[in-house]
Amino acid sequence: MSDRVVLAYSGGLDTSVAIGWIAEQTGSEVVAVAVDLGQGGEDLETIRERALACGAVDAVVADAREEFAQEYCLPALQANALYMDRYPLVSALSRPVIVKHLAEAAKYHGATTVAHGCTGKGNDQVRFEVGIGALAPDLKVLAPVRDFAWTREKAIVWAQERDLPIDVDKKSPYSVDQNVWGRAVETGFLEDIWNAPIEEVYSYTCDPAEPRDADELVITFDRGVPVAIDGETVTVLQAIQELNRRAGAQGVGRLDMVEDRLVGIKSREIYEAPGAIALITAHQELESVTVERDLARFKRQVEQRWGELVYDGLWFSPLKDALDAFIEQTQQHVTGEVRVVLHGGRAVVSGRRSEESLYDFNLATYDEGDSFDQSLAKGFVQLWGLPSKIAAKRDLNK
Amino acid sequence: MSDRVVLAYSGGLDTSVAIGWIAEQTGSEVVAVAVDLGQGGEDLETIRERALACGAVDAVVADAREEFAQEYCLPALQANALYMDRYPLVSALSRPVIVKHLAEAAKYHGATTVAHGCTGKGNDQVRFEVGIGALAPDLKVLAPVRDFAWTREKAIVWAQERDLPIDVDKKSPYSVDQNVWGRAVETGFLEDIWNAPIEEVYSYTCDPAEPRDADELVITFDRGVPVAIDGETVTVLQAIQELNRRAGAQGVGRLDMVEDRLVGIKSREIYEAPGAIALITAHQELESVTVERDLARFKRQVEQRWGELVYDGLWFSPLKDALDAFIEQTQQHVTGEVRVVLHGGRAVVSGRRSEESLYDFNLATYDEGDSFDQSLAKGFVQLWGLPSKIAAKRDLNK
Amino acid sequence: MSDRVVLAYSGGLDTSVAIGWIAEQTGSEVVAVAVDLGQGGEDLETIRERALACGAVDAVVADAREEFAQEYCLPALQANALYMDRYPLVSALSRPVIVKHLAEAAKYHGATTVAHGCTGKGNDQVRFEVGIGALAPDLKVLAPVRDFAWTREKAIVWAQERDLPIDVDKKSPYSVDQNVWGRAVETGFLEDIWNAPIEEVYSYTCDPAEPRDADELVITFDRGVPVAIDGETVTVLQAIQELNRRAGAQGVGRLDMVEDRLVGIKSREIYEAPGAIALITAHQELESVTVERDLARFKRQVEQRWGELVYDGLWFSPLKDALDAFIEQTQQHVTGEVRVVLHGGRAVVSGRRSEESLYDFNLATYDEGDSFDQSLAKGFVQLWGLPSKIAAKRDLNK
Amino acid sequence: MSDRVVLAYSGGLDTSVAIGWIAEQTGSEVVAVAVDLGQGGEDLETIRERALACGAVDAVVADAREEFAQEYCLPALQANALYMDRYPLVSALSRPVIVKHLAEAAKYHGATTVAHGCTGKGNDQVRFEVGIGALAPDLKVLAPVRDFAWTREKAIVWAQERDLPIDVDKKSPYSVDQNVWGRAVETGFLEDIWNAPIEEVYSYTCDPAEPRDADELVITFDRGVPVAIDGETVTVLQAIQELNRRAGAQGVGRLDMVEDRLVGIKSREIYEAPGAIALITAHQELESVTVERDLARFKRQVEQRWGELVYDGLWFSPLKDALDAFIEQTQQHVTGEVRVVLHGGRAVVSGRRSEESLYDFNLATYDEGDSFDQSLAKGFVQLWGLPSKIAAKRDLNK
Repeated sequence: MSDRVVLAYSGGLDTSVAIGWIAEQTGSEVVAVAVDLGQGGEDLETIRERALACGAVDAVVADAREEFAQEYCLPALQANALYMDRYPLVSALSRPVIVKHLAEAAKYHGATTVAHGCTGKGNDQVRFEVGIGALAPDLKVLAPVRDFAWTREKAIVWAQERDLPIDVDKKSPYSVDQNVWGRAVETGFLEDIWNAPIEEVYSYTCDPAEPRDADELVITFDRGVPVAIDGETVTVLQAIQELNRRAGAQGVGRLDMVEDRLVGIKSREIYEAPGAIALITAHQELESVTVERDLARFKRQVEQRWGELVYDGLWFSPLKDALDAFIEQTQQHVTGEVRVVLHGGRAVVSGRRSEESLYDFNLATYDEGDSFDQSLAKGFVQLWGLPSKIAAKRDLNK
Repeated sequence: MSDRVVLAYSGGLDTSVAIGWIAEQTGSEVVAVAVDLGQGGEDLETIRERALACGAVDAVVADAREEFAQEYCLPALQANALYMDRYPLVSALSRPVIVKHLAEAAKYHGATTVAHGCTGKGNDQVRFEVGIGALAPDLKVLAPVRDFAWTREKAIVWAQERDLPIDVDKKSPYSVDQNVWGRAVETGFLEDIWNAPIEEVYSYTCDPAEPRDADELVITFDRGVPVAIDGETVTVLQAIQELNRRAGAQGVGRLDMVEDRLVGIKSREIYEAPGAIALITAHQELESVTVERDLARFKRQVEQRWGELVYDGLWFSPLKDALDAFIEQTQQHVTGEVRVVLHGGRAVVSGRRSEESLYDFNLATYDEGDSFDQSLAKGFVQLWGLPSKIAAKRDLNK
Repeated sequence: MSDRVVLAYSGGLDTSVAIGWIAEQTGSEVVAVAVDLGQGGEDLETIRERALACGAVDAVVADAREEFAQEYCLPALQANALYMDRYPLVSALSRPVIVKHLAEAAKYHGATTVAHGCTGKGNDQVRFEVGIGALAPDLKVLAPVRDFAWTREKAIVWAQERDLPIDVDKKSPYSVDQNVWGRAVETGFLEDIWNAPIEEVYSYTCDPAEPRDADELVITFDRGVPVAIDGETVTVLQAIQELNRRAGAQGVGRLDMVEDRLVGIKSREIYEAPGAIALITAHQELESVTVERDLARFKRQVEQRWGELVYDGLWFSPLKDALDAFIEQTQQHVTGEVRVVLHGGRAVVSGRRSEESLYDFNLATYDEGDSFDQSLAKGFVQLWGLPSKIAAKRDLNK
Repeated sequence: MSDRVVLAYSGGLDTSVAIGWIAEQTGSEVVAVAVDLGQGGEDLETIRERALACGAVDAVVADAREEFAQEYCLPALQANALYMDRYPLVSALSRPVIVKHLAEAAKYHGATTVAHGCTGKGNDQVRFEVGIGALAPDLKVLAPVRDFAWTREKAIVWAQERDLPIDVDKKSPYSVDQNVWGRAVETGFLEDIWNAPIEEVYSYTCDPAEPRDADELVITFDRGVPVAIDGETVTVLQAIQELNRRAGAQGVGRLDMVEDRLVGIKSREIYEAPGAIALITAHQELESVTVERDLARFKRQVEQRWGELVYDGLWFSPLKDALDAFIEQTQQHVTGEVRVVLHGGRAVVSGRRSEESLYDFNLATYDEGDSFDQSLAKGFVQLWGLPSKIAAKRDLNK
């Protein structure tokens, strides 16, 4: 049997061309693997057939949408994961699940190598290769676009010479990556960071500036998991999809940012993540009600590190596992309902209720029923401020 | 000379009554101090006269608006200070500046004691008393409302018996605190955290849901300081005021949250901070462009701690001074322009440009002119992932 | 039935006198609870009889040594818990286990109140009361020494008047607290922080300066738990006891420090913790070998917070539970053997071996067998330094 | 004029051979730069002459000992910098100062390139190249040992063929790097991490196990700077040298550890740093006395990050500058005297006194003079524990 290479296949020009190119260069058989993460677009069966037409010995398409939602998006939601306080890790979450399928396919097909179509200046190459290293450290990795300085022009020539069934004229002015957790757009005129994005950049969200009626909904969480919307039971995937639809219709979740890539450069990115942003907003607020103060404060540090780690390609890593254990522990009381108003690009929480609430009306109220013992405050205040008072006595003597 | 007490005076029922009450209880002369932080409302001269009419031996009003903007709001802006990732520390910033004026007045008037009208379950008592302890550790503190279980009802009776010039019928259903950095509203029907806020709660902001045209502006920063709006030079105070007006008109800066108070309880708070939110949004984005990645990551931790510390009443503290030194160092390149669109409750950055930019078009672009050496990536990726790969080899052997 | 009070009873003057005093002041019956944490000293049965002789309606002694070692010392060991990088939390660990026994006794005896003999300026009052609040929030707390300004002199008079069976002449010049995890000494001439401690202060450790032969031993850990010493299986309690003996004989584990108390003051403390220090030293080193770098770096922050939290009386708290979940996850590969030399006050690791080692001879060696691919380094170094290089280009242009 | 290369020259085999090799390979003239950081060993003039004899067109030796002590060791002392809580960054501190001299020499001699003799699996290549990138981003870097897979054997042949004046027989079984801040030893039989180090490994320290009399001294700090020993004024360099001598004579500062290298592997390292360890020990203790609690707690995080950053080659980086600003602020009261006993491998503080002390005898004492108001404690304790009590009430209801 020939040596085999498993290729992460998107159906696009670069990876279609890579099939034959890898076969030629390495003498190996190429198995194409396409993973459905809710990115929409072409039918996966069409993609599968294209892979075979381009010379793959086998082509596998996997519907990983539930898996992605449950095992990748949900932990991100529970971590309120926003890289640089803003980006919900759309692409960063998807690469590990693709890697998992690649590693499984490599094992199944007896492949010694996996291949991906990433360039050498993005984050995704890191997420692919570090992920493969962690799941199947003995596999080799090929990155033809990066390591052989592949360009779009060369790819087109190659495809035309071999008459591959690829529409080489269909070219977006942008580079796009999308899945059910969100959509990322970059390059083109956006590379000038003074340029504002234009409407054609967006696809998951309507223009928030257009007048329309607000949408209001209630999200129910059970231990950090969204389990119902307006009383209807949902899976995590359904929750994201429903909120993509409803929050997207209100223009929620557009982001325009300059971002620090792991490879050391800053890049300009436009994101749309209506469902992710609406869910994180609701989840954060329910945590405000149900998570104790010191825990909430430390969790913010854990969330930041979690986001950096996943952004930086270290999904499969010992630190990630330990941060997950911390986060899992924090979710056990994050149960209750959050009412969210979606309107004009904003997702705003307007009410929350929970059997697990730590908000105590009787301690909080200034009205009748106040049970807070104010006589305790004086001693608290005095000792709370004692260290800085002692320091002040010293410093004022100078 | 009689002993003297300096009272933080707002002009309202509680502190008006406190003047006479303190005099009676302690036999001291009371000096009232009112500080203008841009809270608007009554004329300060009116307030001064009321203090005298209520029995103060002297009454001082200080216009501290520039000082507040420059020395308190600006550091908060540079720290992107948002307690619990949301609250821009409106009241928390104002107490230290009031404390400073109290301490100065106490020194000038030879007072041995300062007094404030805070209750025993809020944060402001801590900010007052810890602040006094740090600026004038030998001063005593009186907190009549807290320590003598003063109530609104008792205060009204007292005022009426003595015929004090206070309109006791004018009662807001809410407890409100405001200054140029923002406005805080609590109590009343808001104490039920399932209740949504209603329009009458708001004063600094228009309804974001009402259709209107967007407002676009360009903010210029010089080393972290907003110095111009649309090319017009501004002081920090003017920048905040102008953005309060323009962002407020677009409904920007409304916040509805359940918050962890220092005294250990959760409370529900509504905030409006149009200028603060718009400025922080612009400032954060300019930092994304001009601050190096590792510094930006660590600064987030510093920002969180800064916000907690200031919220917790420790403005005048050794840790605050050291965090400020860190932050000051980070601002030296935060120079440039940010274009912000204000609309429908959102302040959105749509462009940024800077002589100090670390965004390098030639490194970032996927078009012609790309100067990034992709051949470096392979080695980077391999060594970046080596620790988790070594760990994986161990763990997969089990 | 009369109301009952459960008293944390040590057998000493203060708590012996408290029995009758509480009974008199409150009309309640007092149940004395003494907990054996390996503190040595008087026989617990003697202590029990003294409690009864002093007027307790019942007296309970609990051997909690295994529980203390397993559930309190072991987590501290796994957290490498050293408050201020030095103090192994001797007293801080013991209060929660005592609290647990008090809460159980209160439930069993139908008591409404627990009492302790702590003063108002130490940490232990916090650990007792916050612990009780977390385990049995409905119990009231009495702290007679603190709240009624009890003094040693008053206690002696009271004891003599009632002819209580207490030797009031036996007075240490120091205040001492001890258990199997270590021993704390304070007050007396040590309150002058320029004074060096003298030999009579110490009890768990011999003088490290005295010449003697070194002792060498091998500690075996299984997932972070010390399970054998020199090949002999041990429980956690036995491991601590054996190392107290052997490391104590070599003068290991003496600490002399100025410490930040939770109540806001600095105090001078002498500690002896031979077993704790030897075990933590060995455990840290085994972690160096078996824990991945990023995880190890973040664990240090978790360890610091864990130590602060436990020091600050928050053993029973949501954040502690979540930090424990993190730490537990980190221990799963901390398995192997560490050789430790005990001598002259030092516990020094001289060898480590582990099936779970991440130290890879072939990657590390500069000799034959080197499998590290040095060609990867150049790309790594270049991209690693790229952010600071870009910043430098900007900054050097000024 | 020919192109020029500035080479970091140690006088040893690798860099001596590199002179001619670089000249041959590149056609450039080689300027050798040797920097005296207190490493001892050969006379620098001898080294200079060897460089010329090996073909350098010029050779520069710089006495950077004061500069190194003042600008590199002192910040490390003030940061109490111990990577992995142990390693005082001996080599990590020296590379930036060498880099600075290389960059200056490159400018002076009009060189376009700098070269170093590091391998591709250590940390020092990163420190050199990232440092050069930050100080002189336009310089190219040559690393012949790494990039051309140089080996010792090849180097010897090369040297013999050209009759270079190098004693190729003088080979240490270890790889050693040393300077005034300490000494690092690795490789050889130490690569088996179960092997204990033997006496011949050490050079800066005597055997701590040998009986001898203790040495006691008093170190005076002024704002974090060691300024006198036993009352004699010293420079920072003299302080380190004096303590290297006296602490080294007592066997202080030996370290044996498994360490996480930046390139992703674990390595075994032996260090000796008698002066560094004694100074850090004294400095930490004086900080315990003079630095406020919250500041001290946060400084620990800053210290850890500082140590990681410097270890990881990012001495010249924006984050380093900002951490330095924080640390500098913390040192302003670190003034006073610390008495240290050096004996049997231990440096132990036995006394401290300071005009800037925050230790307040009257607040701390349990004797007469106690000024701590214990009545404040009850309120403090109650509110301190309130969040965990509220959480407990919720959780116990389950």
